[in-house]
This record gives sequence, structure tokens and C-alpha cells, in this order.
Amino acid sequence: MHKLPITIYYEDTDAQGVVYYANYLKFFERARTEYLREAGYKQKDLMKKGAIFMVRGIKLDFKKPSYLDDLIEIRTQIIKAGKVSFDFSQNVFSSKNELLCEGLVKCGCLDTKEYKPKPLPPSLHEGMKSLL
Amino acid sequence: MHKLPITIYYEDTDAQGVVYYANYLKFFERARTEYLREAGYKQKDLMKKGAIFMVRGIKLDFKKPSYLDDLIEIRTQIIKAGKVSFDFSQNVFSSKNELLCEGLVKCGCLDTKEYKPKPLPPSLHEGMKSLL
Amino acid sequence: MHKLPITIYYEDTDAQGVVYYANYLKFFERARTEYLREAGYKQKDLMKKGAIFMVRGIKLDFKKPSYLDDLIEIRTQIIKAGKVSFDFSQNVFSSKNELLCEGLVKCGCLDTKEYKPKPLPPSLHEGMKSLL
Amino acid sequence: MHKLPITIYYEDTDAQGVVYYANYLKFFERARTEYLREAGYKQKDLMKKGAIFMVRGIKLDFKKPSYLDDLIEIRTQIIKAGKVSFDFSQNVFSSKNELLCEGLVKCGCLDTKEYKPKPLPPSLHEGMKSLL
Repeated sequence: MHKLPITIYYEDTDAQGVVYYANYLKFFERARTEYLREAGYKQKDLMKKGAIFMVRGIKLDFKKPSYLDDLIEIRTQIIKAGKVSFDFSQNVFSSKNELLCEGLVKCGCLDTKEYKPKPLPPSLHEGMKSLL
Repeated sequence: MHKLPITIYYEDTDAQGVVYYANYLKFFERARTEYLREAGYKQKDLMKKGAIFMVRGIKLDFKKPSYLDDLIEIRTQIIKAGKVSFDFSQNVFSSKNELLCEGLVKCGCLDTKEYKPKPLPPSLHEGMKSLL
Repeated sequence: MHKLPITIYYEDTDAQGVVYYANYLKFFERARTEYLREAGYKQKDLMKKGAIFMVRGIKLDFKKPSYLDDLIEIRTQIIKAGKVSFDFSQNVFSSKNELLCEGLVKCGCLDTKEYKPKPLPPSLHEGMKSLL
Repeated sequence: MHKLPITIYYEDTDAQGVVYYANYLKFFERARTEYLREAGYKQKDLMKKGAIFMVRGIKLDFKKPSYLDDLIEIRTQIIKAGKVSFDFSQNVFSSKNELLCEGLVKCGCLDTKEYKPKPLPPSLHEGMKSLL
């Protein structure tokens, strides 16, 4: 499990005084990026090989809000590591360890030009499986 | 069914050259807001009554990307209109009528102070039911 | 002078209950894009010619805030139309015609690969001058 | 001088493949927030006293772009610490110590209700002066 702390700034909030829900997807992406660095993932290297990652599906359940200046934590775990698709469980916890948001993010690897599924480079696939 | 046209600007895109997926949630909210105006919904009026709408859950399936300068359409339909919770089907179509993204957004009405479920004002509840 | 109406949604606001100041830059870009369409500007066409527009400098003075559900207007006027650089005056007005924000945006045309100044295509340069 | 490192994620970039210029304002605010914590600034505490900070003016000069996965640094220095207004110099540097963007941000302290200038709480004013 990978843990990424995030501080909430004005940019993250809305007029309800809480974090604007779409912004959790930004936090999730920061967390996946840092998590996958451990598996040897560098986005630019992948792009040079003509491949990109794409988010194919998202499921979010919001339990409790978070607020300006809060320090939250994104907990990320890869739960499926296929050759062309891979899924992440991503949850948000408060500093008091309360579950604020439960997420599932389904990703795929695509050919840059054709925008069609493309198998992960083998070394990256192995790296991802090692995180399971 | 409500239809909202959206033009894609730089702010909506990312370094993959496509619309950043989290931004569809912004488009969906613009569409729900305009749609609910028809049902007599004004966010500020609701806030004065001590109530706010909150997104409780989201499900998104991305089919195809959209690009800078594209003109897309958000098609929104309320599919459940309960007293404290209401769900929307929200889909994104290209100008060629291709389905780009399929979405389900679950909302609730909350008390502003307690952040607990609160029934919709009756007139708004009626307005929502009339859109079913 | 070009006028673009903008409705304020939750995505635009922050926990102070007002439009988050950085978002005015997004509104300004929407306005410049629509304004320059009149001068024959299409971003994708320009990219095919190996050129992009880049914002080189910004000056903003905030006078009054705007709020959720407000309908504001972006008033845009090109004030300099050089061969490689061009400047816009962009101001935000409330629905009561109050000046909310005064802006100056300096742009340039760049070579896509070298990221160095490149003269505007002549037809676009003429189109811009006609807007002065 | 305060230094804040920032990693560039997809959310920060646009279809030109570079950081979308408006997002530097978000980075600047993160940096000011962390910088002012040293001076005893807590946004929520300030709000309880009926005061908020507001950005009153901005000046930005963009020199060079930054890209996905880049590690940049925001260097912040308070240059004026008045009783109701205070200014910051905020510059962006690449990991190779190149100046990417030069910024000046003018802020003020406002009464939450009236939205009119309000002197800083004395302890915070002293804290800010100590950073000069």
C-alpha cells in the first residue's frame, strides 16, 4: 500500500467550504504516479515508446468532506495488473484515520497514435505485478 | 433529457492532448445546474434554507477521448428523484453523435451545518419528479 | 470589443465563497479563443503549421469578487497586433456593469519545436489588425 | 526566502504539452501558505477572527515552459508587509536553476462580511515583518 499525504489549499475547495469532489481525482493521479515510480514507471519514457496510460473507468463514493488546511492521506493499492489494463483501489483518509472517500480507478495502456490498447512494456508489467 | 453544448479550451486538456478526465465532472456539474434550473433549483436560495446539494457517488466509463476545440454535448437525465437523494445519468457525445463517456452521478441534499441528510424542499422535490 | 457571458459554477469558486482568482485566467482564454475565431484563428490549424500561441505575460487587478451563480461578462479588445506578439485588454464586468477585474494579457506566436518566436501566418496577422 | 518544490502532474499540463500558465498561480498560493505558516498564519484561525486574505493584484512574466514530470521550485519572498496589504515576489525555477516564471502577487486583508480592508491581527503583522 502506498500512502501520499496531501495538504488542502484554496485551489482544492469550493463555495461549500469543502474540497470540490472532482479534485480527489487529481489527488488520486498524483498518488498513482508516485506509487508507480516504485515499479519503474516514468511517463515520459513510456511516451517515447509510443504508449500512454489512460484512465478507462472511475468509481467514487464520498463519505465525509475535507476542508481547507486539512492534511489528508491517499492510500493506493494496485489490485489488478493485466497486460493491457490495471486497476487501483484508492481511498482518502483524514488525519484522524476516518475514511473520507473510497475510489476504484481502472486504467489501460494505449498506443499513442492509434489510441488502441497496447500491452505494457514487459519490465513495467513485472514491476506492477510485484506491487500486488 | 437536457443537452448542454461545451467547447473544449486549453484549460480542459492535458499533455496527452485530450480532455483531462476529471474535467468531465466539471462539465457534468454545469449540465446538472442548468438542467435543475428548469425544476426551480437555485443554489443560493437553497443555501439560504440551510441546505446544499452534495455529490455522494460517481461512476464514469471513458470510451473515446475528446480534443482541443471540439464541440461536445452533455446529455443529462434524472433517473431517481427521492426526498433526500437523486441520481443522474450523464453522457458525453461528440459532434458526430459518438458516445465518449458514460456517467452516473448520485447526489444528496444535506443540512448546511450538520452535514447530515435533509429532505429536499417539497417544491423542488416536485420539480425534480416532473423531470423523470 | 468582444463580449463573452460566463455563468459561475462550483468548479470556479473556493472556500471564501467567491471565484478563485486564478480562474479568471481560464475565462480570459475562453474569451480570446472566441474573439480570435472572428479573425480566422483556429488553434488546430495553427498547430499544423508548426506554430502555437503562448501567454508571455499577465497583469491582473481585482476590484470586487464574483459569486456562485453570478452571470459575469468578459470584455476583450486586442490593443497590439505585432507580427510575433499581440496584447489584449480583458476586463470582467458584473451583470450590474461593475468592473470586477482588470486584465492585460500579452501573447506571442512560437515555433512548436524550437519554442522560439515565430511570425504569425500573414492572413492571421491581417485578421488581428482588423480587430484593433 | 522560502523554497517549495513542486512535481508536475497531468492535471497541471495542457494540450501544448506544458504547464498551463494559470496553474502557476496555484503553485504560488501553495508556496505563500507554507511560507506564512512560519509567520504564525493559519487560514482557519484568521477566518474565525472575521478576516480573510485576498489576492488584489498579480503580475506574471513567463520565460520558459515546464513539462510533465518536471521538478520545479517556487521561491517566495515577502517584499512589503503593511498593516492591510502585503506583497510577495514569487519566482519559478527549473531543477537546473533556470528562471521559468517571474511573479509579483499583491495581497490584502479583508473583513469577511463587509469585504472591506481590515488591518492584520498585530501578531501576524509582526510575523510578516520578521520575514522581510
